[in-house]
Amino acid sequence: MERLVRTGLLYDFYGGLLTEKQQRVMELYFLENWSLAEIAASEGVSRQAIHDLLQRSEKTIEGYEGKLGLLERHSREQLILVAIKDRLQEIVTGNTKQDSPFRKELLEIKELIIQLIESENES
Amino acid sequence: MERLVRTGLLYDFYGGLLTEKQQRVMELYFLENWSLAEIAASEGVSRQAIHDLLQRSEKTIEGYEGKLGLLERHSREQLILVAIKDRLQEIVTGNTKQDSPFRKELLEIKELIIQLIESENES
Repeated sequence: MERLVRTGLLYDFYGGLLTEKQQRVMELYFLENWSLAEIAASEGVSRQAIHDLLQRSEKTIEGYEGKLGLLERHSREQLILVAIKDRLQEIVTGNTKQDSPFRKELLEIKELIIQLIESENES
Repeated sequence: MERLVRTGLLYDFYGGLLTEKQQRVMELYFLENWSLAEIAASEGVSRQAIHDLLQRSEKTIEGYEGKLGLLERHSREQLILVAIKDRLQEIVTGNTKQDSPFRKELLEIKELIIQLIESENES
C-alpha cells in the first residue's frame, strides 16, 4: 500500500490518540496536502520541527496498528465486501431480466454494501 | 448493551493497548469467567487489587472508545450487514425456486456475509 494512503487510513483509525497539535499537523499534511514549509509557517516553527513531528506521529500510529491490527482487519473485511458487491452486480447483469423482481432488490442490497464500503473509508 | 458484553467488545478492539497483566486479568474475568477470588489467588494479590485493576482497565478501554469510537462504528456496520443477510434470506425464501440459478449464488453471498459478521465478533 502506498505510504501516503496507508498513513491516511491509519490516521483514520488512531488519529484520536494523537495530541491536538499532532492531529492538526497530520491533517494539514495528509488530508489538506499542505507543504512542510506552509505548515511550519502556520505553526511558527521550523520546517525540520514539522518533519520530525510528522515522523513521530506516523511512528505512533504504526505502533498502535502493530498492537491492535485494526487496519489489517478492516482491509480483509473490505476485500470481502467488494467481492460481494461485484458478485451481486454480476448476478444482476447476467441473470435477471429488466423487470425481474430480484433485480430491484439486489440492486438495493448492492447499494447498501457500497454505502458500507464508502462510509468505512470516510468515517 | 449489557456491561459485560460491551466490555468484552471493547476489549476485543483495545485490549492490545493494556499492560500484559491487565490483559491477562481481563481475559480470565471476562472470557474465562473466573471469579475475583480465583484470579486473586492465581495472581498472588488481594481480591480488592483485582477489583481495582479491572476497574482501571475498563476505564482505560472506555477512554479509548471515547477518543476513537471504533465499537460504535463497528456496531453500525454490523446492523447493516445483518439487514443485508436477512434481505438475502427473504429473497431466497420468497422468490426463488429450489432449482433457480440465483438461489445458489445468493445463498453463497449470504454465507460470505455471515462469515463477515462472525469473524468480526470473533477476531
